[in-house]
Amino acid sequence: MSSSTGLLFRVTTFGESHGAGIGCVVDGCPPGLALDPAVIQTDLDRRRPGQSRLTTRRKEPDRAEILSGVFEGRTTGTPIALLIRNEDADPSAYDAIRDVYRPGHADFTYDARYGLRDHRGGGRASARETAARVAAGAIARQFLAVTYGVEVLAWVEAVGEVTAQIDTGRVQRAEVEANAVRCPDAEAAERMAEHIAEVRKAGDTIGGVIGCVARGVPAGLGAPVFDKLSADLGHACLSIPACKGFEIGRGFEAARMRGTVHNDPFHVEAGTGRVRTRKNDAGGLLGGISTGEDITLRTAWKPVATHFQEQTTVTRDGRETTLRNKGRHDPCVVPRAVPIVEAAVLMVLADHALRLRALRP
Amino acid sequence: MSSSTGLLFRVTTFGESHGAGIGCVVDGCPPGLALDPAVIQTDLDRRRPGQSRLTTRRKEPDRAEILSGVFEGRTTGTPIALLIRNEDADPSAYDAIRDVYRPGHADFTYDARYGLRDHRGGGRASARETAARVAAGAIARQFLAVTYGVEVLAWVEAVGEVTAQIDTGRVQRAEVEANAVRCPDAEAAERMAEHIAEVRKAGDTIGGVIGCVARGVPAGLGAPVFDKLSADLGHACLSIPACKGFEIGRGFEAARMRGTVHNDPFHVEAGTGRVRTRKNDAGGLLGGISTGEDITLRTAWKPVATHFQEQTTVTRDGRETTLRNKGRHDPCVVPRAVPIVEAAVLMVLADHALRLRALRP
Amino acid sequence: MSSSTGLLFRVTTFGESHGAGIGCVVDGCPPGLALDPAVIQTDLDRRRPGQSRLTTRRKEPDRAEILSGVFEGRTTGTPIALLIRNEDADPSAYDAIRDVYRPGHADFTYDARYGLRDHRGGGRASARETAARVAAGAIARQFLAVTYGVEVLAWVEAVGEVTAQIDTGRVQRAEVEANAVRCPDAEAAERMAEHIAEVRKAGDTIGGVIGCVARGVPAGLGAPVFDKLSADLGHACLSIPACKGFEIGRGFEAARMRGTVHNDPFHVEAGTGRVRTRKNDAGGLLGGISTGEDITLRTAWKPVATHFQEQTTVTRDGRETTLRNKGRHDPCVVPRAVPIVEAAVLMVLADHALRLRALRP
Amino acid sequence: MSSSTGLLFRVTTFGESHGAGIGCVVDGCPPGLALDPAVIQTDLDRRRPGQSRLTTRRKEPDRAEILSGVFEGRTTGTPIALLIRNEDADPSAYDAIRDVYRPGHADFTYDARYGLRDHRGGGRASARETAARVAAGAIARQFLAVTYGVEVLAWVEAVGEVTAQIDTGRVQRAEVEANAVRCPDAEAAERMAEHIAEVRKAGDTIGGVIGCVARGVPAGLGAPVFDKLSADLGHACLSIPACKGFEIGRGFEAARMRGTVHNDPFHVEAGTGRVRTRKNDAGGLLGGISTGEDITLRTAWKPVATHFQEQTTVTRDGRETTLRNKGRHDPCVVPRAVPIVEAAVLMVLADHALRLRALRP
Repeated sequence: MSSSTGLLFRVTTFGESHGAGIGCVVDGCPPGLALDPAVIQTDLDRRRPGQSRLTTRRKEPDRAEILSGVFEGRTTGTPIALLIRNEDADPSAYDAIRDVYRPGHADFTYDARYGLRDHRGGGRASARETAARVAAGAIARQFLAVTYGVEVLAWVEAVGEVTAQIDTGRVQRAEVEANAVRCPDAEAAERMAEHIAEVRKAGDTIGGVIGCVARGVPAGLGAPVFDKLSADLGHACLSIPACKGFEIGRGFEAARMRGTVHNDPFHVEAGTGRVRTRKNDAGGLLGGISTGEDITLRTAWKPVATHFQEQTTVTRDGRETTLRNKGRHDPCVVPRAVPIVEAAVLMVLADHALRLRALRP
Repeated sequence: MSSSTGLLFRVTTFGESHGAGIGCVVDGCPPGLALDPAVIQTDLDRRRPGQSRLTTRRKEPDRAEILSGVFEGRTTGTPIALLIRNEDADPSAYDAIRDVYRPGHADFTYDARYGLRDHRGGGRASARETAARVAAGAIARQFLAVTYGVEVLAWVEAVGEVTAQIDTGRVQRAEVEANAVRCPDAEAAERMAEHIAEVRKAGDTIGGVIGCVARGVPAGLGAPVFDKLSADLGHACLSIPACKGFEIGRGFEAARMRGTVHNDPFHVEAGTGRVRTRKNDAGGLLGGISTGEDITLRTAWKPVATHFQEQTTVTRDGRETTLRNKGRHDPCVVPRAVPIVEAAVLMVLADHALRLRALRP
Repeated sequence: MSSSTGLLFRVTTFGESHGAGIGCVVDGCPPGLALDPAVIQTDLDRRRPGQSRLTTRRKEPDRAEILSGVFEGRTTGTPIALLIRNEDADPSAYDAIRDVYRPGHADFTYDARYGLRDHRGGGRASARETAARVAAGAIARQFLAVTYGVEVLAWVEAVGEVTAQIDTGRVQRAEVEANAVRCPDAEAAERMAEHIAEVRKAGDTIGGVIGCVARGVPAGLGAPVFDKLSADLGHACLSIPACKGFEIGRGFEAARMRGTVHNDPFHVEAGTGRVRTRKNDAGGLLGGISTGEDITLRTAWKPVATHFQEQTTVTRDGRETTLRNKGRHDPCVVPRAVPIVEAAVLMVLADHALRLRALRP
Repeated sequence: MSSSTGLLFRVTTFGESHGAGIGCVVDGCPPGLALDPAVIQTDLDRRRPGQSRLTTRRKEPDRAEILSGVFEGRTTGTPIALLIRNEDADPSAYDAIRDVYRPGHADFTYDARYGLRDHRGGGRASARETAARVAAGAIARQFLAVTYGVEVLAWVEAVGEVTAQIDTGRVQRAEVEANAVRCPDAEAAERMAEHIAEVRKAGDTIGGVIGCVARGVPAGLGAPVFDKLSADLGHACLSIPACKGFEIGRGFEAARMRGTVHNDPFHVEAGTGRVRTRKNDAGGLLGGISTGEDITLRTAWKPVATHFQEQTTVTRDGRETTLRNKGRHDPCVVPRAVPIVEAAVLMVLADHALRLRALRP
């Protein structure tokens, strides 16, 4: 279904950018998990607008109210519903685009699909919906950390042409959160921030790349054939607004490699006796199933569609016109998309962890 | 579920590389469709082993028997089951790897997941399973062609460092099928064939890139949020063995672009009155929903894991050892993967076409 | 999933009896439907506690707030989330049963399943959850009425040994709502009310039977094999707390009939040319698919588990004890379950109506 | 989906009565299970036509070929596909009904749904499809027996007005299989056989009732709200052709009972310390979740629609006509439906056993 994902850790989101609020229902989270609302809030704060000068100035506190599924601080195994009220909605800012299709946005395609749409702030197509995913991901985060010791960490790897140098195996959350861009390469981060500022000044926007690693994932996660972990991770990332590309391990680079170079030889780890690989070009997956090595992936993000230069476009009733956007918008999506990518990955891993338990408890 | 995909055009595959056979059940194909077995066979022939000197020498006729769901040449709306018997299975060739994990293969991860596995030819993890997808895709192809005039066409865009020049808007099936590499750029195709031959001679393998276009897709396909067409297409492609990357439209290139450049301005097409874009950097999707423009995507393929040089690895019982593969294998997967990518895309489009019908008949 | 139902008209409910509130997300309702909140409220009022002297004295206004999916009075095709706050929760009334398993309730089985539970008012197992289904059903009701002219009507057919005489083909909503028991046979209704009063006086509870008819359902709804309309209707009704039996058409009576008597002969209706049957022992379904005749079904309801006489039972830590319930409870569930049965049937019909559209638009 | 059921133990069936064959794909059966084909065959033999003078004379050996998912006698965790060829199909017997709607059959409703149908022997609507369910159920049977010690046993409880006396708690398979009617009350079985013979002689058919018990089911199976075990069991049984009613525990009788009588008091079992009930009016379920007591259910079966007296009906093109059936048919469905009910129950229990493992391994 369009607004649900996952088989056993099942997340449904609802809500529009300028309606009463947004939220999610997480069905299938195991019982007995001590759920810390502060973890949810921390992730929401990393995604929320107005957090730095690099982002939109819309002010949303994004407080998540837990409506159900938690009793005396623990999950009960029943659906966890979370509600985030919209507080700083300013629908009047969107009157101008009620009948105009913004290039690069879903205005035209929603009308093509539904015959009508809530135009205020993009309605359901708004990236505001991803706050609900982040909240759901923060629940998955706690389940995976407590049960398996899994850590999922994403970061900004490129903004436009500015690219960072990152050691996937060693990067830490503190390094990511050390700057507003969320790039753990401090020097690159500074150039990225400058680039974003300059692009904004030009009334323009810019794309970027987000990298991500999942550590501590046990071997055996991911189903063969259609529900490979790679496929489900790709699905989760590509379902985030503005995501246009996904790769696992070496990704597109692997297309230029030879088998003798790309294959990761196995060895037995001294001490643990675990089957390991010394390099990890596979990105932690073989045949779509986790090897126990770090899962590494990268995602590509198009420039934000809302720039502030004049564009030619058409109206709902088929007239050509011009449009110049107003309002509060991010010049670059990647700093705020970092926790969204983490949430996407966390939900998939939680789902597959439960699926493996069903198969082999 | 691991072996099923799609909500309304639902495909389930079964079978192992060296078992009795492989097959699929297609549930949800609308009734009354004149189903031409020759179209299924043509697609199977494009995927089957032994079709050229570039591919494995395993000889499989890959004849699909229609077991159900078709009556007097037409679909009845009930499940269409297809069975392809394995005929040239040679399980003895795999005795050597019964207890050894081949690097780059799913041997280790299947054992980690299931605690046992059918090791013969990779069992369920074998790319042989994709023949069932190709058969299912050929049914989707006929449904989409008859009902909407949709055409889906894939091709080889790169083999290792050899890259083709392709005009996505104009490329034709005849050009793709004109050579064994399935690259419509004849000059590049020749160099690719040479490259593959040289790699094979070295006992090595090589990766590649496959491009794909879907033409004639009506606007409005693709569900918001989790089931964006981009997400489902990514899922479908990334679930094919050896696929490591996926991008829609400009993909990773979009990450370096500015919004003023990337956005596709709308205009009204003279004559038809349709809302169109003159360029298509979005790749035919906005907000995950089809615009009516060509849907364009690219996929990255790792080098085949089975090369013929010695590798270090470990056994099931945890001893380090060396391995040198034998048997019949492709040095490069992309020529045979072209119809598999088409099948993946076709299944997703058929599913979403039915979903749109439910919403707005 | 445990808290979702339906393939295309997909309903997810959340919430506990004494938590913040309950609610639902309806995903898949077609766009453009003028949604009248009053219809939702009317159905909620029919289910809500405290509506008559026959029901529990808990006072819940059961106001549904529409959080999403509706814009300017019309559905947008995106998820419709509804929230009903709990207002008259009195969790202290349940302190006594925190560690005691009430016979006939889900206390023991929830602990067996989850290892912990929200004991307040039955938590998630409470029939309070059904308010969310009623709200979702009221959306289905409007979709089906506007699109197909479908009407779904349920009524009380028996309370204990008191049985009503009802002409399924002619019964009207006004007759059902004419009395607090919701029995359209006024004379039987009076005896039922007396019976309930007497049972309550004795500190006891009593079971009953609810009948239901769906009129105007087009022929062709219901999928073959596992998703027969009969199976999905049975599933929907049997998933309501306290429902212990379900029959379609003649049901258990059919088990005593001969084929020559049970079969409904076909004829061609004068004027319309429609294929009809003069009697309808099949209950409007053949092979699990609707015939276009009235769909008729009956459901059996066990007596409410909370009576006020002393019972022997055990505690969470395995001691035998006795229990005498206190609090506010219905002596008989059927008068309030009437709108719940309607909602269950409405959701199934809406789902299958959409499924038929996908197959044959 | 119409031809699939179950979330984790997922069964898809395919095939028509007079096509190439029927079969199923079982996806999700845990790996490592020693699968005995003889158990599958035994169940198929109990369902197959021609097994006694009470059943149709169609001769089908119903041999199931295992196409996949089993390696060296053990399940691999990948899809198990089973194929049963149709051998004694006699489609010419159905030429007469190609364009005539048989009363009581799905001919008219399939045409209404699909616009065309495979009329031979009822096509997909034929009870022949249930052989595939029986084969899938036999896999579930082995999984549940080995893993949990679960036993599922059904029997004929009534044929027309002839009713048996059965002690649900003690009845054994040998008693059920001791006669062709599959009624463990030998005296009643004899009268049932006479009744069926007499009905057949009259060119008529007769309905019946099947009872079923599931023993050894652990407490905690069954999901709250929509996927109650009662709801899923009802769904599974009501999806079998000719099943018109379902009840769990006391069922419709409970509607006439008082709470003080119906509630099963809990006690602590000496020795084991298990929470038990001395009587089991609940039928082994509270709140839709298993208590650990026997799960008891009953199902109602309409008389076979194919009798041999003249009936009035209509043709596809809307003419009224008369019809007298010919061919090979059962006069009463219940003796052969016993293993089908068991299969339905087994599939649901296997699915929920896996679901509980995911939640609490």
